[in-house]
Amino acid sequence: MNEAAKTLDGWYVLHDFRKVNWAAWKQVPTEEREQILAELKSLLSKWEEATLFEKGTHTIYSILGQKADVMFMLMRPTMDELNEMENAFNKTAFAEFTIPTYSYVSVVELSNYLAGESNEDPYENPHVRSRLYPTLSDAPYVCFYPMDKRRDGEDNWYMLDMDERRSLMRSHGMIGRSYAGKVKQIISGSIGFDDWEWGVTLFADDVLQFKKLVYEMRFDEVSARYGEFGSFYVGTLLKKDHMAKYFHV
Amino acid sequence: MNEAAKTLDGWYVLHDFRKVNWAAWKQVPTEEREQILAELKSLLSKWEEATLFEKGTHTIYSILGQKADVMFMLMRPTMDELNEMENAFNKTAFAEFTIPTYSYVSVVELSNYLAGESNEDPYENPHVRSRLYPTLSDAPYVCFYPMDKRRDGEDNWYMLDMDERRSLMRSHGMIGRSYAGKVKQIISGSIGFDDWEWGVTLFADDVLQFKKLVYEMRFDEVSARYGEFGSFYVGTLLKKDHMAKYFHV
Amino acid sequence: MNEAAKTLDGWYVLHDFRKVNWAAWKQVPTEEREQILAELKSLLSKWEEATLFEKGTHTIYSILGQKADVMFMLMRPTMDELNEMENAFNKTAFAEFTIPTYSYVSVVELSNYLAGESNEDPYENPHVRSRLYPTLSDAPYVCFYPMDKRRDGEDNWYMLDMDERRSLMRSHGMIGRSYAGKVKQIISGSIGFDDWEWGVTLFADDVLQFKKLVYEMRFDEVSARYGEFGSFYVGTLLKKDHMAKYFHV
Amino acid sequence: MNEAAKTLDGWYVLHDFRKVNWAAWKQVPTEEREQILAELKSLLSKWEEATLFEKGTHTIYSILGQKADVMFMLMRPTMDELNEMENAFNKTAFAEFTIPTYSYVSVVELSNYLAGESNEDPYENPHVRSRLYPTLSDAPYVCFYPMDKRRDGEDNWYMLDMDERRSLMRSHGMIGRSYAGKVKQIISGSIGFDDWEWGVTLFADDVLQFKKLVYEMRFDEVSARYGEFGSFYVGTLLKKDHMAKYFHV
Amino acid sequence: MNEAAKTLDGWYVLHDFRKVNWAAWKQVPTEEREQILAELKSLLSKWEEATLFEKGTHTIYSILGQKADVMFMLMRPTMDELNEMENAFNKTAFAEFTIPTYSYVSVVELSNYLAGESNEDPYENPHVRSRLYPTLSDAPYVCFYPMDKRRDGEDNWYMLDMDERRSLMRSHGMIGRSYAGKVKQIISGSIGFDDWEWGVTLFADDVLQFKKLVYEMRFDEVSARYGEFGSFYVGTLLKKDHMAKYFHV
Repeated sequence: MNEAAKTLDGWYVLHDFRKVNWAAWKQVPTEEREQILAELKSLLSKWEEATLFEKGTHTIYSILGQKADVMFMLMRPTMDELNEMENAFNKTAFAEFTIPTYSYVSVVELSNYLAGESNEDPYENPHVRSRLYPTLSDAPYVCFYPMDKRRDGEDNWYMLDMDERRSLMRSHGMIGRSYAGKVKQIISGSIGFDDWEWGVTLFADDVLQFKKLVYEMRFDEVSARYGEFGSFYVGTLLKKDHMAKYFHV
Repeated sequence: MNEAAKTLDGWYVLHDFRKVNWAAWKQVPTEEREQILAELKSLLSKWEEATLFEKGTHTIYSILGQKADVMFMLMRPTMDELNEMENAFNKTAFAEFTIPTYSYVSVVELSNYLAGESNEDPYENPHVRSRLYPTLSDAPYVCFYPMDKRRDGEDNWYMLDMDERRSLMRSHGMIGRSYAGKVKQIISGSIGFDDWEWGVTLFADDVLQFKKLVYEMRFDEVSARYGEFGSFYVGTLLKKDHMAKYFHV
Repeated sequence: MNEAAKTLDGWYVLHDFRKVNWAAWKQVPTEEREQILAELKSLLSKWEEATLFEKGTHTIYSILGQKADVMFMLMRPTMDELNEMENAFNKTAFAEFTIPTYSYVSVVELSNYLAGESNEDPYENPHVRSRLYPTLSDAPYVCFYPMDKRRDGEDNWYMLDMDERRSLMRSHGMIGRSYAGKVKQIISGSIGFDDWEWGVTLFADDVLQFKKLVYEMRFDEVSARYGEFGSFYVGTLLKKDHMAKYFHV
Repeated sequence: MNEAAKTLDGWYVLHDFRKVNWAAWKQVPTEEREQILAELKSLLSKWEEATLFEKGTHTIYSILGQKADVMFMLMRPTMDELNEMENAFNKTAFAEFTIPTYSYVSVVELSNYLAGESNEDPYENPHVRSRLYPTLSDAPYVCFYPMDKRRDGEDNWYMLDMDERRSLMRSHGMIGRSYAGKVKQIISGSIGFDDWEWGVTLFADDVLQFKKLVYEMRFDEVSARYGEFGSFYVGTLLKKDHMAKYFHV
Repeated sequence: MNEAAKTLDGWYVLHDFRKVNWAAWKQVPTEEREQILAELKSLLSKWEEATLFEKGTHTIYSILGQKADVMFMLMRPTMDELNEMENAFNKTAFAEFTIPTYSYVSVVELSNYLAGESNEDPYENPHVRSRLYPTLSDAPYVCFYPMDKRRDGEDNWYMLDMDERRSLMRSHGMIGRSYAGKVKQIISGSIGFDDWEWGVTLFADDVLQFKKLVYEMRFDEVSARYGEFGSFYVGTLLKKDHMAKYFHV
């Protein structure tokens, strides 16, 4: 029996992608639209309280192309809280003018492939904690995609022994580290929660760095032989203060 | 000709996933909404009678993410009863405010891979009976996914002889047993009934255990080489008493 | 050039799966609903005349789960007649309350893999005729699925020579025969007519026999190495006399 | 670098599949329906002028099953004309009662695999011209499907050298020729135009010949190892004179 | 660790495919339709200013077949501008009469596979600049398709070393160059931005050249063994001056 990687697991994550039903939105009288946005902002403000108390975090991006108009990325200590937030959002008047197009359920994950030996409880390590329970970035650009490790004939990640996997992940991690300061990465595990094994969320000041990073990694054996990728979503930050303009019709 | 596994078969199962049409639901006057929920609860109460007489069981969960809002999991001794229940539900006023998103038809199944030799009729064994005709858990969390055993080139489960399969399943079962007390598992067979070969329904007090279990199993050869997985659904218990709150708008 | 199997071809078949739009159906006043069902029954009665004159047959089942509510299975000597029947059904008031979800076009087929040598015209053989031009069963349960023979690398059915195929089909047929009296099977060929190569329709008094048969066959090399399967539909008989109850809202 | 086959290219082809929205169609008052059909027939008559001047051809079939109700197959010397025809059709009142379900863009193609050496310009050869610029058949039955040549591991058509491909195509063509007089075949190339590499349109007096031809070919190595097939559509001729009856509600 | 190709990256690209809702469009009174088109033209005129100042470019084509009616292809120096343009378009009255069917997000890309050694900054080279920041063609025909380099068993582009890839790309490029003057090609990279790795947009005076080019390339090892292709879209130029006619109903 092959040894599974150990993981550290942080906050639960819900990525929620929506299109805006612009035609219906435009039918709404201006004053009512303002009330609807005010209700939305009020919900967002309530959610921000969790951030203040370090009990969660969230961010919103405008997605480019037809896959979605907006992405809500929500993090909380329990899945119940995410379910309540989704439920609360669905009951807003604003939600009536959105069309759900994709969502992803996962939990922030750090794997032990690159960890050294230690007697310390990693959940007490401040650096580890800052990654498991992050404050979501307000970087100008976001990139999200789900992925699997391949199990196909000779290219079966899960049949490799722990040492091979660790060695492959080390070289893979070196590419990631060479983008330090350029791309911030959050890996969240979704085995048992959603259709792919991991979700990858990247943040950057320069959107081109997403392409450079993912392209360079694709030549690395971990991706080249063992990576399977879902849909890619790319977008620009949508601050609460810019919503009035974004949704102005 | 290769020897097929023998199975013990219990109650028939219908997993029924639905989204709620919140926009339409909100249009309904409060009093009418209460009547609609009362009618739904009345149907659920009728279904509970079967549980009292050990003639079936059911449970309801709220699913996280856009795949569904609620999952009804229904079990009965005959497929005809499930068909009638589905028919009755579809005729409720509540159903008009739901959008079907996925369903799964199967029958609770125990395989003989791990069974010892015995002259006893297993259908008379109380332990076996409790697994074939279970009372559905009110655990806080549920996970459902359908799966196949792979038939692809060198990785063809159905071309392995019985001894190889039994040996592989034994190691697989050991992982499952190490989660005893943490995760309760119901396997239901769907060959000939639905698009995948099995449905797996997991229940837990700690949702993270789903990820730990499924991840650990993925490194076991039965999953690593021979497992194909469909969509994963994860959710939180939706008790009848909490429905008023859940559906309050 | 590899030798193709010879086939005997009987009546053309249309499987037509529909969901019922219950919400719209309930809006219709009771009296009008009764008229709509009367029109439907009148069409069915007209179709039954063909059965009386052995010029076709049909049957109707209620499908379990969200894939469909009802399946019409229609057989006629020509494809033109099926097209007219589909057209006539689509023009009924009842059809307005249905949502097409799947259909399948094929022709009843017997292959010569298992045939002995004979000078006799098989189309004159009463046993063969009863299988090519059957009277559709009123068995309590139905199972339908489409399938292909695989053409993938080393597992390519169409590259096997006739003797290998005949030998494999013989063992496969033995499993089928062991279910004689339990499961009635109609194979219909759809190469050139629809997206899979064959449709399989099974009838049984005990729905569990579908699972037992398909599961046992999956361990046989014909299915294990060479079978590709589409969606499975399972349902219960919906007699004309029970329609009033089934569609009562 | 591998040698590509040379092709002769004729008229551009648009296959346009539509379902009829019968529920909406029935709402229209009889007199208005007649006007709508008259406008449609007037467009068809205009299109027929091209046929008279050998500047194009078209035909219409009623498709069996839920994939479509009608298929328009249009041919013209330029893609611009097809675009104008599609645009003109979309602007008819009739189009409002149709639901597009599939379309295919291609150009009639003859390959040089089977051509002998010649100094003659093939585009001046009357036999070649009659195949590149055909008059579309009014055969009772049609069959359409798109296909690819496989590029998968050892089964990669495009890695075979010209001589191997020519030899394989010769045996394949012999099957086709054995159906001369029974099935008329139009091959149209769609590389660069649509999602598959070729569209195949077959016409016959006996619909069973489609199945016999495609089944026999599937055992030939060109199909067995190198063929990938899309959806199959089968239907019966829908003459302009029968439209009144076909669309009568 | 395998060496990744270096790329030069130019303007960001949004391909936006839409169907026209002709039925709704026809309901609009003539005068209002003219206002709606005037608003659209006014937006297009504003977009043209970017072209004048070499800060972007765009073009519009009418797509043949049911995949779309129109394709907007937009280029800008930043992704933010594309997002604003998409947002502005979605808020026009015209957009209410369109149905989004596909979109593609990428950035114009030149790879270094064919580049010689040079000390020069390529971004200062006028020839390179004209390809990275092009003026979009008003060629009569367009062809768009997304593609991947394959990673499948023995056919894994990303496991080839740089020299092998460079040598394969050289032969591939020679085919492309033999179409100089016939087909203009824009390659845009989408790794990290969208679901495929590259988008290919071709322009030509003769639509048949698309088929000839793509077909010839398919026999080249780069495509034959390593190419995976998405949907193909083909269309004819839709000039602003012809919009009144195109949208006249």
